[in-house]
Amino acid sequence: MRCKRPEDPQRRQNFTDIHSALNPHLTCHFRPFLPYSSDPMRLHRSMFSDTLSRQSTKEQRDKWLPLAQNYAVVGTYAQTELGHGYCLINSFFVNFLFFEIRCQFGGSIMRPFLGHSPDPFALHTSMFAYTLMRQADQEQMAKWIPLAFSFTAVGTYAQTELGHGSFLRGLETTAEYDVRSREFVLNSPSITASKFWPGGLGKTANHCVVMARLKMSGKDCGMQSFIVPIRDLETHQPLPGVTVGDIGPKFGYSAMDNGFLRLDKVRVPRENMLMRYSQVLEDGTFKHPKNDRLVYGSMTLIRTSIVGGCGRALAKAATIATRYSTVRRQSEIAPKSGEVQVIDFQTQQHKLFTQIASAYALINAGKFAADLYNNVAAKIEGGQLEDLPVLHALTATLKAFSSWEMASGIEQCRMSCGGHGYLLASGIPQIYQDMVPACTYEGENTVMCLQTARFLNKCQEAANRGEKLPPMAHFLQARSGNRKSGLTERMELDELVAAFEFRAATASAEANARLKAQRAQGRSEADAWNASSQLLVQAALAFSHAFTVRAFIESVRNAKFHKSLESVMTQVATLYALDGILRFSGDFRKGNYMSDRQLELVQDKLLDLLAALKPNCVALVDAFDFPDQVLGSALGRWDGNVYEAIMEAAKKSPLNKTQVHPAFFKYQKPFMDWMKTQSKL
Amino acid sequence: MRCKRPEDPQRRQNFTDIHSALNPHLTCHFRPFLPYSSDPMRLHRSMFSDTLSRQSTKEQRDKWLPLAQNYAVVGTYAQTELGHGYCLINSFFVNFLFFEIRCQFGGSIMRPFLGHSPDPFALHTSMFAYTLMRQADQEQMAKWIPLAFSFTAVGTYAQTELGHGSFLRGLETTAEYDVRSREFVLNSPSITASKFWPGGLGKTANHCVVMARLKMSGKDCGMQSFIVPIRDLETHQPLPGVTVGDIGPKFGYSAMDNGFLRLDKVRVPRENMLMRYSQVLEDGTFKHPKNDRLVYGSMTLIRTSIVGGCGRALAKAATIATRYSTVRRQSEIAPKSGEVQVIDFQTQQHKLFTQIASAYALINAGKFAADLYNNVAAKIEGGQLEDLPVLHALTATLKAFSSWEMASGIEQCRMSCGGHGYLLASGIPQIYQDMVPACTYEGENTVMCLQTARFLNKCQEAANRGEKLPPMAHFLQARSGNRKSGLTERMELDELVAAFEFRAATASAEANARLKAQRAQGRSEADAWNASSQLLVQAALAFSHAFTVRAFIESVRNAKFHKSLESVMTQVATLYALDGILRFSGDFRKGNYMSDRQLELVQDKLLDLLAALKPNCVALVDAFDFPDQVLGSALGRWDGNVYEAIMEAAKKSPLNKTQVHPAFFKYQKPFMDWMKTQSKL
Repeated sequence: MRCKRPEDPQRRQNFTDIHSALNPHLTCHFRPFLPYSSDPMRLHRSMFSDTLSRQSTKEQRDKWLPLAQNYAVVGTYAQTELGHGYCLINSFFVNFLFFEIRCQFGGSIMRPFLGHSPDPFALHTSMFAYTLMRQADQEQMAKWIPLAFSFTAVGTYAQTELGHGSFLRGLETTAEYDVRSREFVLNSPSITASKFWPGGLGKTANHCVVMARLKMSGKDCGMQSFIVPIRDLETHQPLPGVTVGDIGPKFGYSAMDNGFLRLDKVRVPRENMLMRYSQVLEDGTFKHPKNDRLVYGSMTLIRTSIVGGCGRALAKAATIATRYSTVRRQSEIAPKSGEVQVIDFQTQQHKLFTQIASAYALINAGKFAADLYNNVAAKIEGGQLEDLPVLHALTATLKAFSSWEMASGIEQCRMSCGGHGYLLASGIPQIYQDMVPACTYEGENTVMCLQTARFLNKCQEAANRGEKLPPMAHFLQARSGNRKSGLTERMELDELVAAFEFRAATASAEANARLKAQRAQGRSEADAWNASSQLLVQAALAFSHAFTVRAFIESVRNAKFHKSLESVMTQVATLYALDGILRFSGDFRKGNYMSDRQLELVQDKLLDLLAALKPNCVALVDAFDFPDQVLGSALGRWDGNVYEAIMEAAKKSPLNKTQVHPAFFKYQKPFMDWMKTQSKL
Repeated sequence: MRCKRPEDPQRRQNFTDIHSALNPHLTCHFRPFLPYSSDPMRLHRSMFSDTLSRQSTKEQRDKWLPLAQNYAVVGTYAQTELGHGYCLINSFFVNFLFFEIRCQFGGSIMRPFLGHSPDPFALHTSMFAYTLMRQADQEQMAKWIPLAFSFTAVGTYAQTELGHGSFLRGLETTAEYDVRSREFVLNSPSITASKFWPGGLGKTANHCVVMARLKMSGKDCGMQSFIVPIRDLETHQPLPGVTVGDIGPKFGYSAMDNGFLRLDKVRVPRENMLMRYSQVLEDGTFKHPKNDRLVYGSMTLIRTSIVGGCGRALAKAATIATRYSTVRRQSEIAPKSGEVQVIDFQTQQHKLFTQIASAYALINAGKFAADLYNNVAAKIEGGQLEDLPVLHALTATLKAFSSWEMASGIEQCRMSCGGHGYLLASGIPQIYQDMVPACTYEGENTVMCLQTARFLNKCQEAANRGEKLPPMAHFLQARSGNRKSGLTERMELDELVAAFEFRAATASAEANARLKAQRAQGRSEADAWNASSQLLVQAALAFSHAFTVRAFIESVRNAKFHKSLESVMTQVATLYALDGILRFSGDFRKGNYMSDRQLELVQDKLLDLLAALKPNCVALVDAFDFPDQVLGSALGRWDGNVYEAIMEAAKKSPLNKTQVHPAFFKYQKPFMDWMKTQSKL
């Protein structure tokens, strides 16, 4: 256990006062509060080995347990990621194989596993396997899952097209059924129809689940999924009619061969359409699915997991920057009294402690959303679908809110490290590049907010009519009347929650009012919606912010903490709320809900909290419990030996392989010689 | 001239309605409004060739003019960058050589020149040459400038140390004078004393201007600059006592060999200390400089140039994203009416038009600051230094404000491009990585804001005492009394300026009040300052925001525009101001300066402006006048042939050199074969 690490005198010296002020209980007691431990070995020891013991055959146990026990194989347990309550043993296997691959590829065994870095097989072990398990019928599963698990068929999932992103109905790729040959003919009719972006598609995959518009004798039967072989199983050469390749360098994700794919009338047998829901019979009869809302469930789950993932990415950046700011000394506070720890500056505390608080808040929001998902999923299994819209609305905007907050937060942490934050060896640029795509993938953020806004607006209109609202939208009714905040200098937690719900309700009401005004001006529903969409997005974000504040405060309240921990965590939760109030202070002044005086109190209290949290700031990030290998940072090391680590990393620069770089002889020397003659002119 | 480009039917088709709504006058007439044209060929044709004709010898003309005329040599004119009114002919030469180098290195002749990408010689041709020209005495210049210009001595400038950044007094490197040998002994006493970060230091430079603490018989004589040879002129091997190397990969700047340097008692002759200001005589007498405030001037100039540079970087990103959003079609507004141009979405307009406005505002602020610098610099030449503090205060915070606004703005533009914004071929990641360091270099942003805050606070205290303030700080007095905004739905420009000055004055007064309260609680001046610094930073940023709004509105007013242009530019300036008000709406509600109703008007007007600007948005970015070669973007092309360009770039991916990547045979195939045997368990 990390918290039992022996006292390290070197660390004590590097972190000076801050370290000596560590609350010895802090790290140990935080762990239960953190929904997902970030120590991968913990999951290996508990869930992986445990599941192995309980659910495998004897042969499997005999083979794998010894390997697991001496860490020759490192595993985890990824039930959630592969579909709750579904194919448990399969998901175990997929995930197990996942780590086998890492071992096989050597060198970087731990790095890609521990960090966020995606690898070329990531889509095979996630979306390809997942889609088979969700959308294939029994017969198809019997055929394809062994092929996938044995890596005979290495797949990916191709939905996005070059000219078309998240808007499913806009996709151009077609699949026409040929009754005579009982085949589908898949075709990319234009350059914009090229599949573009799927991970592993460029060079790795030999199969692909392709989303295409099904046409039956010219009739449009909507988007369906088809398994399309794209490369020869032996030679790995592209098959006839298939044009496939890598899309080139990206902002991050350099280990992933995201690819493009054009299909020129490629034929696949009828059995290659995934038929659990929609079906095409041999004679060309098309059968509609019974319920197509189920597809919501899986997207919701993925988005839920992004929320916590964003929190953890931000937590990493905050850990690095906070430790570094404690070791780093720069500039004086009092003249000639020597350089101080950078963390002593109020401005630095503001940059970092607000992000530590945000990381805790987002991790916690992810946990709340996951719990909610599990509740709703249980109901869905029982056929009750009425909670699905609420869940969908919450997770959509929460994914947007958390990824945007994370992205700006990570950059704030990085820039708080001064010049050294620009070194890749700081670890932060990698975290940013690998996680900022969360703002775009699995539903572009603005699109997500507008989906949530549609739900909120429906609720708002129901509220305006005095109808009953779903529990999570109750706050929309709370605005009625001329409410004023009761917040005092004690910063009552209930008042903080109420303030964010006031803000969310106000934003929602304003968006709704604009929508009505636009309709009243004679605009079509669609145009009125578009002309109000900026306010609708703001309403959705205010909703997720309010959810996050409430979830954080509730979980601090309900946790059975040590008294000393309760006080620190209350400070962190309060800081999170106060920072939010000041960032959007205008929203809280609306209708004089808060007074100038109350906002001054909020400002003063926030600055007081920065000073109060300083002695615990390193403990707060230690409690995130990232081993040095996970952080991969010269600045964020546990022991605080920052400068040695930076120099160590510098010396490993590829340019330092020779004292004099070959480019000197090739370019610089001839140029300098030439310049000498020129300068005599 | 760009504006005379023939009508391009393909472009018209790609940009659809937006293009047909182009105001034909717009592009032509914007140019005079833009302080620095971004068309490098324009400067080549005008200033470079012109200066060459007028100021060179006949031999020089005969040699270079033909080359210039057929573009074998591409030049510009960099007087400003190399010290205004100083060494004109030298700066011409340095700059000329600069481009020669690009030619010599081939391949990337235009890219680094056109874009921001720094190269290994950048510090040689800028800081090294610049420092020689500013800090060397006549004798030293006579010796070193020919060596530098002939590239015999290739130099860089080393100030920052591994453990110490912008805080000069914290630097550890020492230079001890040895009277007997008449040499300085330069030494890095610890690992944290290693010079770290200087561009070109790693592998390119053979000389270095080293900032070190001068010690004379043990007495500390402050920081001085020394020319230190670090590599052998012939073999390029590091000299004895010198440890030098590259610092490793960074976030961007990959073409630059930023380096580290440790000096182990390295001796240089007395003449290698730059002696224009401080001097060390042979007998060891140290002579203080007459005036050390002059060093302010050059930092001020550099920061001024950063402001406009940030504006132009943001303008590039906005150009790419706006053009792409006009060509790109995605999702429907009205159901089943077909996919619309992404720019039709209000949320997309909000993302982009606010950034277009911000780019115009920052470019303009840079121009205003440069004009101010020129006025003050003229006075300084005449010995009048009293305007220096105001100038320093303005440029410090303006540099911070503009770089932060740019950084978040570029990312907003990038993310507005959806998935394709993550492609390096979009051009935006490169702009971000190359320009975001402006938040840190030449004075870390928070440090800069606090320097400005010191000036503002002095003015505030003078204002509190009823004293006269310097012109730029007059607004601090404007707050007195219980002022209310007179803003109406007409969005009067004067009221917008007044609102931002109210905000700046309020922020300044609040910071000052906190400082006083902290003092009153018995804190030392230093601690009171630190405990107020978060508010002081906010005050400095509010000050630069107010300056930027005022400068923008004034310059739109004073420009002699076509009537139609005046209306568009007034819309852009108004949008800039309204967006600022909404982002910080709480500040404008303070003391009920603005009412809820006024803020609603601001919100409504902003949304109206988005719709009003839409037909001109492409013209507004065309007017920035970036040729395609400068943008280097598949998404931001002039002709709008976006998808062909993306596919073209994709096909050039290094991974596409072979249909089957060598890694398949080396790793993937053996692994797949192994998996087949394993899966039979």
